[in-house]
Amino acid sequence: MQTIHKENHFMASDIVKDLVIGMSDGLTVPFALAAGLSGAVAGTGIVVTAGLAEIAAGSISMGLGGFLAARSEIEHYISERKREQCELHSRLADEEQEIIDIFNSYHISQETSRPIVDALKKNPEIMVDFMMKFELGLEKPDPKRALKSAATIAGAYAASGIIPLLPYMMISSSHDALRLSVVITLLTLFFFGYCKGQFIGNKPWLSALQTTLIGGIAAGAAYFLAQLFTA
Amino acid sequence: MQTIHKENHFMASDIVKDLVIGMSDGLTVPFALAAGLSGAVAGTGIVVTAGLAEIAAGSISMGLGGFLAARSEIEHYISERKREQCELHSRLADEEQEIIDIFNSYHISQETSRPIVDALKKNPEIMVDFMMKFELGLEKPDPKRALKSAATIAGAYAASGIIPLLPYMMISSSHDALRLSVVITLLTLFFFGYCKGQFIGNKPWLSALQTTLIGGIAAGAAYFLAQLFTA
Repeated sequence: MQTIHKENHFMASDIVKDLVIGMSDGLTVPFALAAGLSGAVAGTGIVVTAGLAEIAAGSISMGLGGFLAARSEIEHYISERKREQCELHSRLADEEQEIIDIFNSYHISQETSRPIVDALKKNPEIMVDFMMKFELGLEKPDPKRALKSAATIAGAYAASGIIPLLPYMMISSSHDALRLSVVITLLTLFFFGYCKGQFIGNKPWLSALQTTLIGGIAAGAAYFLAQLFTA
Repeated sequence: MQTIHKENHFMASDIVKDLVIGMSDGLTVPFALAAGLSGAVAGTGIVVTAGLAEIAAGSISMGLGGFLAARSEIEHYISERKREQCELHSRLADEEQEIIDIFNSYHISQETSRPIVDALKKNPEIMVDFMMKFELGLEKPDPKRALKSAATIAGAYAASGIIPLLPYMMISSSHDALRLSVVITLLTLFFFGYCKGQFIGNKPWLSALQTTLIGGIAAGAAYFLAQLFTA
């Protein structure tokens, strides 16, 4: 009786990756911008305005950017596949040699790999798929992913960007709001970094520390720069 | 005589990809933020302060984020490789079956692929390399890339983020500065999009149009939101 063999290689799903991309920057950049501005102005009105403008700009830039990147990945796959089909048609011997070379790089002799080439040649479409994966390392992308990816990144950026701004919306003194924003955001970054570590398969505490540190450094740099400029 | 066969599959180098990542957001977000703020305040001082704070925050968040992403990619590869080594040790038959299954998905019979498995078994390290590439689709990442990637993304973000701010540094009326910033930045985005299209292997004019459009939409949304909030 054969036992079922399941390997636990961790592959983070695409949606988790998109959430992480959106949240990493969404928690950090509006937080740091607001912190920087609060060192330069007394009231919180302008901080909130700038924060919201940044969230709109950042989520659109990252979301639409993600959309176009995913779209061009699909187009890239299609055009490379066409090219590979042409190559197979016009230069079959070269393509065969390429497969033999790939196997050769794993110390597999031409005598051993030749039957594989012969089997592939019987079905050109399958041979093209094989070349796409093993010569070019390209997987067929999901055509529906472009829009989903854009929406996930933009939504995650906007939702997490609001968190550091909340204190500025409720407190009129920018210094008091800054203090509360620092506490709330660093705690959120720590929690987010921990979860990210769990999901991505890294050490969660290290990930929590790193994420918090990036937020702190970014906010510190923005604060310092804003102070320098207004002084 | 054999002619030299060189395929022109386009693979954008990692450094070009990092430059594109940094410049896409670097040209768009500070531009849109400045545009948004200029609709809410009369003077340009606060626009420049906010813009510089955003550039510091954005470049650190993206740069350090890129650094950690590249680092965790390396760690992921190392840990997956260890796991694969253990699997090979403890469940050799299963691993052999996995290789046969991979070939089978390309319509290659067990009789044809069995010699490949036997050849790989002679050298376990090579077999692990083979599994990493063909089962998991993981390439060995360059350990030096993490730092280079971080510096490239952050530098590109900061350098391109300054461009839309230049008019606000030179002109005291925020409305006049906005007009000049829109012209300069949209032209730069168009030029950048065209070059990106050339490098990545996409249609350059379409890429130019898309990049310009994203910048315009982001700036428009930021402006609208800032107006809404200050009204």
